[in-house]
Amino acid sequence: MRMSIATVSLSGSLVEKLHACAAAGFDGVEIFEPDLIASDHSPEEISHLARRLGLSLDLYQPLRDLEGVDEATFTDNLRRAAATFATAQRLGIDTVLVCSNVATATVDSDEVSADQLRRIGDVAAGYGIRIAFEALAWGRFVDDYRRAWRIVQLADHPNVGVCLDSFHVLSRGHDPSAIEDIDGRKIFYLQLADAPALTMDVLSWSRHHRLFPGEGAFDLSAFVRHTLAAGYTGPLSLEVFNDTFRQTDPGHTAVHALRSLLWLADHVAHARSTNGLAHARSTNGLAHARSTNRPAHGLTEAKPPTGFDFVEIKAEDTSEVEVMLGQLGFTPRGRHRSKPVSLWSAGQARVVLNEQQARDQVPHVAAVGLQVPDAGATTSRAAELMAPVAYRRTYATEQPLGAAVAPDGTAFFWTSSGTAEPAWAAEFDGGIDQVTTPIRAIDHINLSQPWQTAEDAVLFLKSVFGLSADAPAEVPGPSGLVRSQVMRNADSSVRLPLNVAPHILDGADLPQHVAFACTDVVALARAAAAGGLPFLRVPDNYYDYLSGRFGLDDAVVAELRELNLLYDRAATGSFVHFYTRTVGTVFFEFVQRIDGYDGYGTDNAPVRLAAQRGGVGTVLT
Amino acid sequence: MRMSIATVSLSGSLVEKLHACAAAGFDGVEIFEPDLIASDHSPEEISHLARRLGLSLDLYQPLRDLEGVDEATFTDNLRRAAATFATAQRLGIDTVLVCSNVATATVDSDEVSADQLRRIGDVAAGYGIRIAFEALAWGRFVDDYRRAWRIVQLADHPNVGVCLDSFHVLSRGHDPSAIEDIDGRKIFYLQLADAPALTMDVLSWSRHHRLFPGEGAFDLSAFVRHTLAAGYTGPLSLEVFNDTFRQTDPGHTAVHALRSLLWLADHVAHARSTNGLAHARSTNGLAHARSTNRPAHGLTEAKPPTGFDFVEIKAEDTSEVEVMLGQLGFTPRGRHRSKPVSLWSAGQARVVLNEQQARDQVPHVAAVGLQVPDAGATTSRAAELMAPVAYRRTYATEQPLGAAVAPDGTAFFWTSSGTAEPAWAAEFDGGIDQVTTPIRAIDHINLSQPWQTAEDAVLFLKSVFGLSADAPAEVPGPSGLVRSQVMRNADSSVRLPLNVAPHILDGADLPQHVAFACTDVVALARAAAAGGLPFLRVPDNYYDYLSGRFGLDDAVVAELRELNLLYDRAATGSFVHFYTRTVGTVFFEFVQRIDGYDGYGTDNAPVRLAAQRGGVGTVLT
Repeated sequence: MRMSIATVSLSGSLVEKLHACAAAGFDGVEIFEPDLIASDHSPEEISHLARRLGLSLDLYQPLRDLEGVDEATFTDNLRRAAATFATAQRLGIDTVLVCSNVATATVDSDEVSADQLRRIGDVAAGYGIRIAFEALAWGRFVDDYRRAWRIVQLADHPNVGVCLDSFHVLSRGHDPSAIEDIDGRKIFYLQLADAPALTMDVLSWSRHHRLFPGEGAFDLSAFVRHTLAAGYTGPLSLEVFNDTFRQTDPGHTAVHALRSLLWLADHVAHARSTNGLAHARSTNGLAHARSTNRPAHGLTEAKPPTGFDFVEIKAEDTSEVEVMLGQLGFTPRGRHRSKPVSLWSAGQARVVLNEQQARDQVPHVAAVGLQVPDAGATTSRAAELMAPVAYRRTYATEQPLGAAVAPDGTAFFWTSSGTAEPAWAAEFDGGIDQVTTPIRAIDHINLSQPWQTAEDAVLFLKSVFGLSADAPAEVPGPSGLVRSQVMRNADSSVRLPLNVAPHILDGADLPQHVAFACTDVVALARAAAAGGLPFLRVPDNYYDYLSGRFGLDDAVVAELRELNLLYDRAATGSFVHFYTRTVGTVFFEFVQRIDGYDGYGTDNAPVRLAAQRGGVGTVLT
Repeated sequence: MRMSIATVSLSGSLVEKLHACAAAGFDGVEIFEPDLIASDHSPEEISHLARRLGLSLDLYQPLRDLEGVDEATFTDNLRRAAATFATAQRLGIDTVLVCSNVATATVDSDEVSADQLRRIGDVAAGYGIRIAFEALAWGRFVDDYRRAWRIVQLADHPNVGVCLDSFHVLSRGHDPSAIEDIDGRKIFYLQLADAPALTMDVLSWSRHHRLFPGEGAFDLSAFVRHTLAAGYTGPLSLEVFNDTFRQTDPGHTAVHALRSLLWLADHVAHARSTNGLAHARSTNGLAHARSTNRPAHGLTEAKPPTGFDFVEIKAEDTSEVEVMLGQLGFTPRGRHRSKPVSLWSAGQARVVLNEQQARDQVPHVAAVGLQVPDAGATTSRAAELMAPVAYRRTYATEQPLGAAVAPDGTAFFWTSSGTAEPAWAAEFDGGIDQVTTPIRAIDHINLSQPWQTAEDAVLFLKSVFGLSADAPAEVPGPSGLVRSQVMRNADSSVRLPLNVAPHILDGADLPQHVAFACTDVVALARAAAAGGLPFLRVPDNYYDYLSGRFGLDDAVVAELRELNLLYDRAATGSFVHFYTRTVGTVFFEFVQRIDGYDGYGTDNAPVRLAAQRGGVGTVLT
C-alpha cells in the first residue's frame, strides 16, 4: 500500500517538506495549495524536485466552495476551478480535492450539486484531472460522506469521484461501514487522521487537534478496512492539522508520521487476516511499493513486554543515588567488568548506575530495560518502524541488547524474558548476594516529556512495544498543568506514565521518577528513615486534609505523617506511597497497591509538585 | 467595592500567591483548598501572614459532592464537611464554597438537596461558618443558578446562601437578569471570570480557557449590575482557571487581574449611572475599601485615542531604516536637539528613529505615540489602572508626554490631539519641509506578542485607551499558527493588531511591522522600486493563484507581479499592499484601502510569513 502525507501536516517551506517526506520514506505527498502559493519554486520545479526525490504528487488540495450555488456564482467558480486545474497540471498532479461548500452554498439539492460537479468534471477532464469530492464535517449542506457519494453517483462522470477523510466521518459519529457500499474505483482518495476524544466544535477540533493514527481515539483500522473492502486502491494519506506539528521540525514529524501509517497498515493487515474481512473487491495487497527497507508483508509481530528488566540512572557522579539506594535496602551487586557502571537490586527491581561518558550530567533516567517474549522480533519490528538505534558498546562475551531511542531521548533496551536473573547481570563483579527487602519490582517509570514529543512518544511505545494508552489525566502543579498519559501492557507489569511539561518548561525541568512496588511500604519507610533517607517532606496540612477526606483513624494518620507517607483510596483498593528527595532530575517513589488499587495517587501529585518546588514560601515570608 | 481573587488563578506556592495579591493591591483572596494542602505553612500561619499583608481571607473552596445523595453517603459527607469547616475556622475564614454535586448525586430532588444543605448549615454554624452553594455548569442535577437559589430558599437556614459564578451562568447561556430576584443578603459570594466564545464541553472550557474580565466575550458588566441590583455587598472575586496564568509569574498576573477588576467596576459604575439601574436594594457603592492609590469614585474617564501620533524605531544604528524611509519618500525632519533621535515624516505619518541607550539593539518598534482628547485624563487613568510608567528624559523646554509600558514591553506615549504638527516636532532641528507623497498616515502597527502576554495586552489596550477587540483570527505560518487580535478605536484611525507567536518562538522572533495608508500604493511602489527599495519578494506562484482566484485582468496581475504587490478583495472593497524587507525585527507595509476595505489582507499573511522566512528551500534543493 502506498503511503502519502499532506504537506499541511508539516512545518517549514514546501521544499523542506518534500525533503522531509522523502527522507522519512513516504511514497507520495498531497500538495496543500497555500504551501505552493507561498513557495518560491515554480510548479514545474516542484514537480521535478519531487520526481528526483522519488515522491509522487498524489493530490492537489483544496478547491473550496464550488457547488450548490446559483448559476452566476457557478460561472465564476468554474473559471476559478480551471485556474486550479491548470496549476495541478503544471505540477503533474492528476487529482484535485473539492471540498463540499461551506461559505457560499445557497442551493440544498443533490441534483444541482451533481450537475455542477459534472460540469466541473468536464472542465477538469480538459486538463487530464479528476476531482475527488469530500464532505466536510461542517459543510453547509453536504456534511456526510454518504450524501457526497449520492451526489457523485448522480453526477455520473468518469472524472468525478469521492475523497474520504476519516476525521470528517468519525468526528461526526457517522458509521463508516457504509463505505463498503461505495464503488472502490470511485474512491479517488483516502485521507487519514486520528484525534483525541474531545467535545468541541468540529471545525476547531479539526484545525488544531488532529493526530497521527494510533495517537487518538478513532478506530482507523476499521475505517481503512471498510475502504479497502470497497475496492479502494489508492494511497493511505495523512492529513493532520495539529498546532504542535505545525511548529516542530518537519524531518522529525515526517518519520513520526510514516511510523503511524506503518503501524496502521500492519494493524489493518492483521485484522483482515484474522477476522476474514472480504478481500473480494480489493486488488490492493499490503505490500509496499517503494522503500526497500520497508517490510513486504507487514511488520514483524512482536509481543508486548512482560516486565521491566532494569532502569538506568546516568550521571558523571552517581554516588548520591548509591547512598540513597543503600538507605532504601537495595543490594549492591557489583561493578561492570568493562565499564564504570554498577548494579543495585531489590526483589526483581534492578537499577543500573552509569558513569560512562556522562561528563557534566546530573542523575537522570537514561534508559529503560524491558523483558520481551522475543528480543529478536522486537528488534526487527523497531527497525521496521524506523526507531533510531541506541548504541551500546558490547564486548565479545557480553550480552547484546535490543536498543532504540524514544522521542524524548530515553534509550530503551530489551532482552528475551526468561530466567529470574538476566544474563547480563553476570557481567557485574564484586557484589554481594541480594538481601531480603519489602521491595518487589519496578512498578512504573515516569518519563517527563517536552510538549513537542508527547504524541510521538505515545505512538512510539504503542507501535514498537505494543503498549496501550490510558485516558490522559491532568495534574495542577505550581508551574502549570502537567498532562499525564500512562502507557502500559495488559497485566500492568510495565507502566510508563508520560508527564508532559507545561509550555514554559523544558521537559528536562520536570523531574522523572522510578516507582518501586513494595509488599510493606510502611516497614520500608521506617527502615529507610532509620537509615537517614532524605524523604520528600509532606506538609502537615496534607495530613489534616487526609483525615477529613477519608475518615482515617488518628493512629493511621499519625503514622503516615511521621513517615511522610501519602495515601489514596479509590473505588477499588487503596494506595500508600512515599517519595525521596530529587537528585539531579530524578527521584524515587515506593508504593504499595492494596486490594487491587490501579492508579498512581494522582490526587497527591499537586502536593508532591509543590513540595518538590521547595521552601520558596519560607524565604518570602 | 472590595476586590478579591482565588489563589487558583495564579501560579506558585500559596505564600507566593498571597504576596503577589497583596503587592498588586487586592483586598482579599479566596483560598483554593489544594493550595493550602500543598503548603508548608499551617492554616494559622497563613491567616497571620494574610493579616500582616492586609489581605482578608474571604472564602475557602471548594467542598464537592455533598448533597443529593443517600443517607449513608450523606453521613460520611457531613463528617468530611466538618473537617473542612475546622480548617476554614483555623484560617479565620467564615465562608466555604459548596459546589453542586457532580460525581455522587443519586437523588434529583430540591427537597432532599435543601434538607441536606440545611443539615450541613447546622454543622457549619457550629464552626461559625456559612456555606455558599454554587450550581456548577456541569452539575449532575443542579446546573443552573436559579435552581441553586430555589434549593437555598427551601433550606431556609441563616448559614446557607448561594455563590454566583459568572462562568457557570453565562457559559450555559442562562439569563443573568433573574439574579435580581435573589435576596442580596443570601448571595454569599460572587466569582467573576470572562471567557472567549468557544464551542466545547463546558468543563474543559472552564478548566483551561477562563479569562480576566475584559479579555473575553462575556458581558460581565451586566452580570455584576444584576448582582448589585439584588443587594449583594460582598467582594468582586476573580476565579480564573487558565493554562497560561497557571505557568506565568504570579506577581505579574496579580496586577493584570486587579486591572481587570478595576476596569470592570468602572464599567459597572458608568452603566449604572447612565442607564439608571435600580440602586434601591444595593448598599454597595463603588468606593474602594483599601488601597489609598485606588480612585474613590471609579476611574478617571479618558476618551479613546483619535489617531496615531508617531511610531518609534529604536536601534544602536538606525541607518538602514533611514535609507529605506528615504527610498519610500519620507522626508527627514531633522535631529532632536538633545538626543540621538531623528524624525521622518510622510503625510500625517511620523517615524522617530532612536539611537539613545540602544547598545546592541537591532531595529525594533520601541514605542507607539497616540493622540488622545485629553492627555492628562489618560495619564490619570493609566496610573489608576497600575500601568507601569515609561520613563523618558524631558528637558525644560521639551514637551512632556504621557507614557506607559505595555505588557510586551512596548512603550506607549500620548499627547492631546490638536494641531496638525505636534508640539514635540519643534524639538527637531535641521530637517527640510515635508515633500508630497502618496503616504497619508500610519494605518496600523502590528505588535508581536509572546504567548504569555497576549491576554494581558488586550486588557491593557482596552482598559487604558478604550480600544475594542475584534474577533481573533489565525494565520498559518511556516513555524506554526499565529493568532492575530486587532485592537482599534471606533473610527479605525488607530489599529493595533496583536500577533501572538507560536509556543516554540519567543515573541521577539516574530517580526513587528508598521503599515502606512496610501492614496496610490502602485505609484509609491513604482517610485520606491526606482529608488532601490528592498521589497519583500513575493513568489510567482502567488500571482498565478491571484489571477485564478479573483479573475483579475492580465495587465493588472502583471503590474502587481512586477512591483511585488499583494491583493485582496472582500465583500466590501479591495486592498493592495506591499512589504519591505525586514530590518532587525521590524518591516514596513504600505497599504491602499479601496471602497471601504476594512481588513488586513490576512489571506496573504502566509505568503508573507513564508517569504520572510527566506530562501531556505533554495539552499536545500
